[in-house]
Amino acid sequence: MPTTRAEVLELDADDELAGLRERFALPEGVVYLDGNSLGPPLASTAESLQRAVGADWGGELIRAWNTCGWIDLPARVAARIAPLIGAGDDEVAVADSTSINLFKLLAAAVAMRPDRPVILSEEENFPTDLYMAQGLAELLGDRARLEVVARERLRESLGREVAVLMLTHVDFRSGELHDMQQLTRASHEAGALTLWDLAHSAGAVPVDLNACGADFAVGCGYKYLNGGPGAPAFAYVARRHHERLRTPLTGWMGHREPFAFSTRYEPASGCARLLAGTPPILSLIALDDALDLFSTVDVAALRRKSVALTELFIALVERRLADHRFRLASPRDPDRRGSQVSLAHPEGFAIVQALIARGVIGDFRAPDLLRFGFAPAYTRFVDVWDAVENLEQVMSTAEWERPELRVRPRVT
Amino acid sequence: MPTTRAEVLELDADDELAGLRERFALPEGVVYLDGNSLGPPLASTAESLQRAVGADWGGELIRAWNTCGWIDLPARVAARIAPLIGAGDDEVAVADSTSINLFKLLAAAVAMRPDRPVILSEEENFPTDLYMAQGLAELLGDRARLEVVARERLRESLGREVAVLMLTHVDFRSGELHDMQQLTRASHEAGALTLWDLAHSAGAVPVDLNACGADFAVGCGYKYLNGGPGAPAFAYVARRHHERLRTPLTGWMGHREPFAFSTRYEPASGCARLLAGTPPILSLIALDDALDLFSTVDVAALRRKSVALTELFIALVERRLADHRFRLASPRDPDRRGSQVSLAHPEGFAIVQALIARGVIGDFRAPDLLRFGFAPAYTRFVDVWDAVENLEQVMSTAEWERPELRVRPRVT
Repeated sequence: MPTTRAEVLELDADDELAGLRERFALPEGVVYLDGNSLGPPLASTAESLQRAVGADWGGELIRAWNTCGWIDLPARVAARIAPLIGAGDDEVAVADSTSINLFKLLAAAVAMRPDRPVILSEEENFPTDLYMAQGLAELLGDRARLEVVARERLRESLGREVAVLMLTHVDFRSGELHDMQQLTRASHEAGALTLWDLAHSAGAVPVDLNACGADFAVGCGYKYLNGGPGAPAFAYVARRHHERLRTPLTGWMGHREPFAFSTRYEPASGCARLLAGTPPILSLIALDDALDLFSTVDVAALRRKSVALTELFIALVERRLADHRFRLASPRDPDRRGSQVSLAHPEGFAIVQALIARGVIGDFRAPDLLRFGFAPAYTRFVDVWDAVENLEQVMSTAEWERPELRVRPRVT
Repeated sequence: MPTTRAEVLELDADDELAGLRERFALPEGVVYLDGNSLGPPLASTAESLQRAVGADWGGELIRAWNTCGWIDLPARVAARIAPLIGAGDDEVAVADSTSINLFKLLAAAVAMRPDRPVILSEEENFPTDLYMAQGLAELLGDRARLEVVARERLRESLGREVAVLMLTHVDFRSGELHDMQQLTRASHEAGALTLWDLAHSAGAVPVDLNACGADFAVGCGYKYLNGGPGAPAFAYVARRHHERLRTPLTGWMGHREPFAFSTRYEPASGCARLLAGTPPILSLIALDDALDLFSTVDVAALRRKSVALTELFIALVERRLADHRFRLASPRDPDRRGSQVSLAHPEGFAIVQALIARGVIGDFRAPDLLRFGFAPAYTRFVDVWDAVENLEQVMSTAEWERPELRVRPRVT
């Protein structure tokens, strides 16, 4: 374990992925450890959007749907995401938001298990996933209900009424990683399907949906994929389910022949039926641009670096902040951890604000969690060192006690 | 009626709205008559996006949700659309696509009339509206069904089983305008609610939802509002329905306190509960930029110019193309017409392609419709003249018979 900043700089010098960072437009003097909430833009994204608005939209106007390939853009972007999550190109669709895609696939899963009304999830799941399931259950009355249990009770709750197990792969608070392979197998043994939310996985944690035998998945374009705030989301459906895939959100872009303008909905083949309304082209272009980064990167190498970054952070915190009442809220075993580390501290909110004021950007989750995301594509080992250095200074000077750091912003 | 191009140029010289055109980035040498499908960008939109990606997203990173006001952007954009459709600021939400918003409001309407399973619409409605209703009906089983009738049978079909009358205000093929006031009244007398799709109205045809006593509406950001391909869409709910408004697409951004991260969904107040997933900020910024145009424009003035443009077009076609088998497929009475004119011709497809090759961009809808949209914000009277001039040349030289004009593009 390095004991000086100079030693840490050597880790960066030896980093096989170090070259990726220069492709990002990151501000000077900032240590950005919140890419698990919002990835930064690539340097090329502004220019791609400039061209999309100027030459494409402005120059070609309506013709751009054909001449600039807009109509195929959702499928092209989906094909770029597929290898990051262990899916075939035709098993991924890009459309709408994670929430909306989750609704489509939950409805599909419940319809495929008509005698089983239960959507099983856990208390720690990301709230919007639970909310969407509640919305579907309320709409369907007796035909669906959400059951939320504690994490340790998930397996024993996989009873005969469970249609689908809906989980987020990496816990947004603790960064704890579910064992996708084992939980998928347990679900199938119980006769249930699985729906994985990959919001905090895709782009940082290797995922192999097909190797796990997963059924459905959704995920987010704006965290480790760097597609921009509110970027379009993705949805995965295993090929074996394509024929029976039915979603209630049957918009014209998921029609077999949208430009036949027929009055009767007929689903497009496979995952393409998951498209609903007209795709948000400008947002898709930003996401497409961001995904170019991954076309040259090995996901296993990203994972190796991610583990090295989180291991270094935890070791430095343990060494330098032992006197300051922090508790590691993420698994100590890197195999059970995503690409973030969470620390618990009773003054967590103010400590995070003090760090942000110093240019070290993490975030806070109630009641007491300081979250630090280590996106391997652009985070340097020296960023980890500097983050801990700043945290040590915040704690040793009691900087977090300053009253102005108590003001809650609207978005935390 | 002018008989020379010079006389038409005088109409432009006298046009009170002529100054608006220079705010658009329109290519030289193009007569753009397809703004009813996709509006062009404002000249300022590329720069707004540049700033959004560079200074806001790239500079502020996650902080931009607070420091750049991203979290309030959907509500700010909604408040800009509200006056264009006769709504209060708190009666409009901007989110998702027109299709998804329609699903939310259809589900809400059906839930408000539990003893009435019928969603009533017409054969000519835009297909995605029918498809979304079919998707909801299939999901709800006995509790909802779509009934589609011919336009002339709508009123007599408003029986005791109808929960909601779902219509598009301006017919996408013919440009025919429904009488919103009378049909809303007839629906209410029959105990039904109304859901208006304003895709081909907002920004070109005056709409006064509150004066009509309308219940629900949806609409599109990328046609006459010029928000960019696949721009976020809007949804309207009359204030009297806010308290009872329940949609099944209950995402975290429609939660009363999204950043409390509670496990139980509680709706935000009023229309804000129509938000679902994380809003697509880049697309919203393009739409926000485009809507700035309308902050200085009187909708009545836009309508006057729109009528003058379509009247001129029809008159010139009648005068110059009488020998060429065109049939006016739009109402002759401007009070019953939106901002487009459709002509029917058996060779419509090839004629439209010949016009596009000449830089006069309209579009084609099967089986035989040539559609021409006259967006009053940027279309000049001389564009109308030039369009008819080109159409006359295409017909008199039989240019449309060239075999290369028979190739169907993917998007028409």
